[in-house]
Amino acid sequence: MKHLLSIDDLGPEGIEAILDLSESFSEVTQREIPKVPALRGKTVVSLFYEDSTRTRISFETAAKRLSADTMSFTISSSSVKKGESLLDTVQTIEAMGIDAIVVRHHAAGAPHRIAQWTDASVINAGDGRHEHPTQALLDCFTLRRHRGPSLAGSRIAIVGDIRHSRVARSNVKAFAALGAEVTLVAPPTLLPESLAGWPASVSYDLDAVLPDVDVVYLLRIQRERAEASRFPSLREYTARYGLTVERAARLKPDVLVMHPGPMNRGVEIAAEVADGPASLVREQVANGVAVRMAVLYSLLGSSSAYPRAAG
Amino acid sequence: MKHLLSIDDLGPEGIEAILDLSESFSEVTQREIPKVPALRGKTVVSLFYEDSTRTRISFETAAKRLSADTMSFTISSSSVKKGESLLDTVQTIEAMGIDAIVVRHHAAGAPHRIAQWTDASVINAGDGRHEHPTQALLDCFTLRRHRGPSLAGSRIAIVGDIRHSRVARSNVKAFAALGAEVTLVAPPTLLPESLAGWPASVSYDLDAVLPDVDVVYLLRIQRERAEASRFPSLREYTARYGLTVERAARLKPDVLVMHPGPMNRGVEIAAEVADGPASLVREQVANGVAVRMAVLYSLLGSSSAYPRAAG
Amino acid sequence: MKHLLSIDDLGPEGIEAILDLSESFSEVTQREIPKVPALRGKTVVSLFYEDSTRTRISFETAAKRLSADTMSFTISSSSVKKGESLLDTVQTIEAMGIDAIVVRHHAAGAPHRIAQWTDASVINAGDGRHEHPTQALLDCFTLRRHRGPSLAGSRIAIVGDIRHSRVARSNVKAFAALGAEVTLVAPPTLLPESLAGWPASVSYDLDAVLPDVDVVYLLRIQRERAEASRFPSLREYTARYGLTVERAARLKPDVLVMHPGPMNRGVEIAAEVADGPASLVREQVANGVAVRMAVLYSLLGSSSAYPRAAG
Repeated sequence: MKHLLSIDDLGPEGIEAILDLSESFSEVTQREIPKVPALRGKTVVSLFYEDSTRTRISFETAAKRLSADTMSFTISSSSVKKGESLLDTVQTIEAMGIDAIVVRHHAAGAPHRIAQWTDASVINAGDGRHEHPTQALLDCFTLRRHRGPSLAGSRIAIVGDIRHSRVARSNVKAFAALGAEVTLVAPPTLLPESLAGWPASVSYDLDAVLPDVDVVYLLRIQRERAEASRFPSLREYTARYGLTVERAARLKPDVLVMHPGPMNRGVEIAAEVADGPASLVREQVANGVAVRMAVLYSLLGSSSAYPRAAG
Repeated sequence: MKHLLSIDDLGPEGIEAILDLSESFSEVTQREIPKVPALRGKTVVSLFYEDSTRTRISFETAAKRLSADTMSFTISSSSVKKGESLLDTVQTIEAMGIDAIVVRHHAAGAPHRIAQWTDASVINAGDGRHEHPTQALLDCFTLRRHRGPSLAGSRIAIVGDIRHSRVARSNVKAFAALGAEVTLVAPPTLLPESLAGWPASVSYDLDAVLPDVDVVYLLRIQRERAEASRFPSLREYTARYGLTVERAARLKPDVLVMHPGPMNRGVEIAAEVADGPASLVREQVANGVAVRMAVLYSLLGSSSAYPRAAG
Repeated sequence: MKHLLSIDDLGPEGIEAILDLSESFSEVTQREIPKVPALRGKTVVSLFYEDSTRTRISFETAAKRLSADTMSFTISSSSVKKGESLLDTVQTIEAMGIDAIVVRHHAAGAPHRIAQWTDASVINAGDGRHEHPTQALLDCFTLRRHRGPSLAGSRIAIVGDIRHSRVARSNVKAFAALGAEVTLVAPPTLLPESLAGWPASVSYDLDAVLPDVDVVYLLRIQRERAEASRFPSLREYTARYGLTVERAARLKPDVLVMHPGPMNRGVEIAAEVADGPASLVREQVANGVAVRMAVLYSLLGSSSAYPRAAG
């Protein structure tokens, strides 16, 4: 595997292989000195056309724990205006001898184009409304740890702004690839125009769905959607689709609650639920580092056996 | 000691212990290769809600000289608007496995709240008008080097905008804890509403105070205070409270001049005085790195003996 | 050599020495682990008063491949307004124990002033319209690789906005020092008021010059120059001075095309030419890292022999 652009690049076996490797790296992150020399001498650049400190820092932490050098190339809107093309930026980065480019871009497909232009490995860290594959992998890893070796038969509701969410697109594919049954829950205005090809069922009614699910995966509501009349108001959204304290109290006792962050506490998730015992939110973040170590190592690691050799 | 939030956390013995350790690290910084592996594998994040490149770089230099990894999490006002709560930001950082968070925040008490939410060590790098304890420690270290093993009996005037200054709050406590006699010198509009609990005397008249002091510690005047009618004009401020060339010429020959930086040359301090032989300004900056190494090591170092083991 | 402020600091022998050393470092950058411990324990700070991610990253990559620590001190216009003087910023950086300062500044001569204030080594990474010496060195290195051990007799046209270009100023000097014959090609409004002291001839007519040249070096056209009436329009500029596909087709077969980046594809250079076989643009970027390693090593390296000892 050269690039990680989409969950489609992996297939069920590829996903499982990354998750297995992530277990090894998760163990590394628990050590007194949580570093291995696996990628010493490699350079990983974050090329972010949208600001996302949390994703950038997760990747940089992962790269540093593998002993890679990291550099950050954040493109403010002003530099974009200054007019260098994406092609020239990428060729410049590559020419400096960089081994991997972690890309966040507002345009769907940008990482795919970049991968055509460069010999460096390209990792999609979120492209428009399209995909965010490492988010899906870390969510699968987190769930697999809680629900046994397989997700087969797990019923997962993904709730919120499916229409604009790259997390939803990647996660539906990954959860389904591992055998889970996914239901998308949203008002009609926050669903894509077509759901052809989405391996998921759909509901407009959260309360009807909740009694049967094992996992509630909440998406961030962006306040500007309400302004754009996608739904009447944040308050009404919360009333119908928020995981409120009342709704959470009616869930089965072992239901798990996930959110990719950053959360709007009090909108799509009540603060008490976010911090409650069912919430995996912090585990998701912690696992993100291990999973991104596994992705970077899979793309850049030499053929020599890891983790035995690098301990 | 888990966190460094306030000078109150330390007491006289705690301050002295940090200063003694700083001597060792000051020696490290003089070496051909000024690094020790003391914090290898630890990760230190700067979480700055206010921009302060000088403080951030001082901490990052200190961390790198201890072989820690560093990451920078600068929160622009736009990201704050985007709405993630301080709690979620902190939990995200912590979940990534970070060992220490160096916080600069515009709200007094923010580092204390953060410390309640995380298992990482929290270092207050300035919170609102409240405290800036590492500034006080580096100033004590600098003074102790010049005025013998103790500050007992040293007479220190802190001059300027006491009201809005976290440096004043931390330094008064630290200087007093080490036995110095502190006088606050400012116009009434730049003094706090109450001085209850400040171990210092007060004067409105710099010229009356100067003949008796051993150290003049000048605070930065923020130009917007003049606009807010806290005093008539910068020119008038300088005439009454600035350490002008004329005033400096009347000081006792061995008086020391300090400033936490950045200086407004020509306002609170004349350029000739800032660069003159009495000025400790550059030493303060240099000692800042050694003192912050000592603080980071005190909070994060293992139980094994330093500096013998790490040399 | 303590600083690199201008190509004038080097002379022909100095340039050749840097280029020879760059060959060694170019070999290092091809290794499986492209790092040497040559500058371990040294700290290199980028002090950029103008944003230039590509130049900053090239220097930081070079420093990291020499095992130096790097820090970035980007001065937004807002911090400049906040009022710390350049002198105080530099003294602060130096006091922290930094070994080299890589400076980009909008004012010609700023690096020279900084060099007077500090014991750290200062590298000019572009000052106003004045100089950009490492760009000239990397261009000489790139050309020397293609045109034999010497540039003597090579005919080089530098085309574009000579008036506002620090690249032109440094490159003319360096190319001429190595024996090349340089012709400046531009409309009169984009030439300096005086060309006294420029070791180059001048032409307003690109088509008259092209049949005789070995190298076409294109400068970036800044769109605001058209707005400032320096020339009628971008379209007219391209028609008269752009290296279009038609013009490129009429060049001698072995002519080399260079550009310092970032390119305005379709303005001063056609996209097909930028990506064509004659273009050295990507090599220039790649060589930039090796040449900056050589510069950093020349300024900061110890007296012990490199590269034998550091392999």
